Amino acid sequence: MANQVERKGLLLKADAIAAPFHEEIKRAVASNNAHPPTIAAILSTSSAPSRFYADFAKKQCEELGVTFILRKTGVALSPELGEGEGVEEAIIEANEDDCVTGILVFFPIFGLQQDHYLQQIVSPLKDVEGLNFKFHYNLYHNIRFIEPKSLLASTMPPPPSTDILSDEPPPGTVKSIIPCTPLAVVKCLEHVDVYNKILPYGDRAYGKTITVINRSEVVGRPLAALLSNDGARVFSVDIDSIQEYTKRPKFSPKSTDDNAEALKYHPRHVTHPCILSLQECLSISDVVISAVPNAIYKVKTEWLKDGCVCVNVAADKNFEKDIRDKASIYIPAVGKVTIFMLLRNLLRLQQYQVYMS
Amino acid sequence: MANQVERKGLLLKADAIAAPFHEEIKRAVASNNAHPPTIAAILSTSSAPSRFYADFAKKQCEELGVTFILRKTGVALSPELGEGEGVEEAIIEANEDDCVTGILVFFPIFGLQQDHYLQQIVSPLKDVEGLNFKFHYNLYHNIRFIEPKSLLASTMPPPPSTDILSDEPPPGTVKSIIPCTPLAVVKCLEHVDVYNKILPYGDRAYGKTITVINRSEVVGRPLAALLSNDGARVFSVDIDSIQEYTKRPKFSPKSTDDNAEALKYHPRHVTHPCILSLQECLSISDVVISAVPNAIYKVKTEWLKDGCVCVNVAADKNFEKDIRDKASIYIPAVGKVTIFMLLRNLLRLQQYQVYMS
Repeated sequence: MANQVERKGLLLKADAIAAPFHEEIKRAVASNNAHPPTIAAILSTSSAPSRFYADFAKKQCEELGVTFILRKTGVALSPELGEGEGVEEAIIEANEDDCVTGILVFFPIFGLQQDHYLQQIVSPLKDVEGLNFKFHYNLYHNIRFIEPKSLLASTMPPPPSTDILSDEPPPGTVKSIIPCTPLAVVKCLEHVDVYNKILPYGDRAYGKTITVINRSEVVGRPLAALLSNDGARVFSVDIDSIQEYTKRPKFSPKSTDDNAEALKYHPRHVTHPCILSLQECLSISDVVISAVPNAIYKVKTEWLKDGCVCVNVAADKNFEKDIRDKASIYIPAVGKVTIFMLLRNLLRLQQYQVYMS
Repeated sequence: MANQVERKGLLLKADAIAAPFHEEIKRAVASNNAHPPTIAAILSTSSAPSRFYADFAKKQCEELGVTFILRKTGVALSPELGEGEGVEEAIIEANEDDCVTGILVFFPIFGLQQDHYLQQIVSPLKDVEGLNFKFHYNLYHNIRFIEPKSLLASTMPPPPSTDILSDEPPPGTVKSIIPCTPLAVVKCLEHVDVYNKILPYGDRAYGKTITVINRSEVVGRPLAALLSNDGARVFSVDIDSIQEYTKRPKFSPKSTDDNAEALKYHPRHVTHPCILSLQECLSISDVVISAVPNAIYKVKTEWLKDGCVCVNVAADKNFEKDIRDKASIYIPAVGKVTIFMLLRNLLRLQQYQVYMS
């Protein structure tokens, strides 16, 4: 017994994951011969976290050579104005302003529904956060490459006709924008080798079972779909139900010449009802990601599989203090990666705008 | 005292309000030389109210000569499938099916957020319910007439450059689709002469003060905006705040030659924070509309202005039993008007599709 060593999982801060993106973006902005990209950031509420995020984003942008213009409206501009007053007008003005490359709106403002309306008002050509439903549609349908002009149409692009073989967009196409927070989580999982680089592009999470707790349209559902489109078996957990997302057929057919066709998997995730309990899902999950916006909610450490990877996406800590007794790797926050994903989206949108002009 | 007469407000059922629309639609469908319009109605849940609504809509459609195709998916098709399973695929199929004029999806399915996503997937050219954000944008911005091809663009049409003088669309334009439930409430208010036909089109609710309780994106907010765009002073009440919507300047300027310009009102409603309490709003409201989805919630009769008009939009009764002691007119439900608004939208969309082909 004297030889026993206390074993704790690795605590991995987002800074280490963000560092290479910091360099990548700094280089890309510096090498850009055109105007520096410009973000119009719209602050319309008295929310302290929003003001904090605005300051943080401003500092990051300026350090990287990105122009950051803070546009205050409503109560953020004057105590006589209301919460969110004038925010739609500010978005429309930024949509029409040729000097603005990307638009960042600080949510929440009015609540889920009206905020969702506002997210659709941001031009998809300037939507650095990837909240326009067209980007969600592309994500859910595993449409990775788009013609920039398709963003000007209200109809949907057709699903990809060929297999995705590399991350290089075919000629005439660009990569679709992916919502920042789900993308940041994927980058975290790439960093810790949950994504296996030996496997072909588009299927690198094959073999991994992942539980995603929360099924909001901003984080949980797009994240579960992304991971499943990349090959993982995903349990999507919300208050009232558990669903299984997978692109593989439920029962693996035997490999014979006759059914080679049947071995093919779906080009994108398919959703099934799931009869497992949360405890059962966690017990077989290699990765557990939690994004529950509630300080009380905790994932029970005792339910986790020994050696799993845990990622906390919520502002509150969704994991218990003893999480590293079970997790091999624990990432307590992803916010610092998220801002770089937003800036990568900004550079991509600048590229779209060049294509379109 | 012996001469006192018991006085009760008028109870007005929706059937009487719906009757002229029933005739109008029946005539329009019969006189249509093209194919009869076709609704694809998508039922994907086990919800009893949705099944009931599907049966009701089917009966109404068939009686009017409208083809009604019920497409079942998910648990509505088979107990082995999940709630809502396959609904997005069914929408995409109906979008692409040239035989389908309009698409009706029975909500709720997954909850507010995912349902909002699905509402954006319905082609705006087939959106009989008017739930696409483009129709909301037009409504909020008081854009009444549109070029049908503008629906194919993801960018927003410019605001109207001229005053709205009549309800006749200028050449090359058609009327924008308005979400069914808010439109049904407006038709109820027209029926009871809250809208004053002597006043010019586009401003017929001028002089009326209206309280709308609930600020959801499906009913309360578009309804408040519609009424205010039509000239009313509107209090929009939600759990956490009261807002005032008006298109008139807050303080009426004196009419002199110098400030004739200042007499003009905004082309659409402007939102201000409101410091009145609900009780104060109700005490000065000519019309009170309540759409709170909660059986417990009741508007206090004693707070109402004597002789006001009250409209209950919620499935539950939001008014107390003694409502007609105070209200001059009480409309307990609007559902039967809503279905005709949906069918009017269907005929309008058929006209759009002719324009586009």
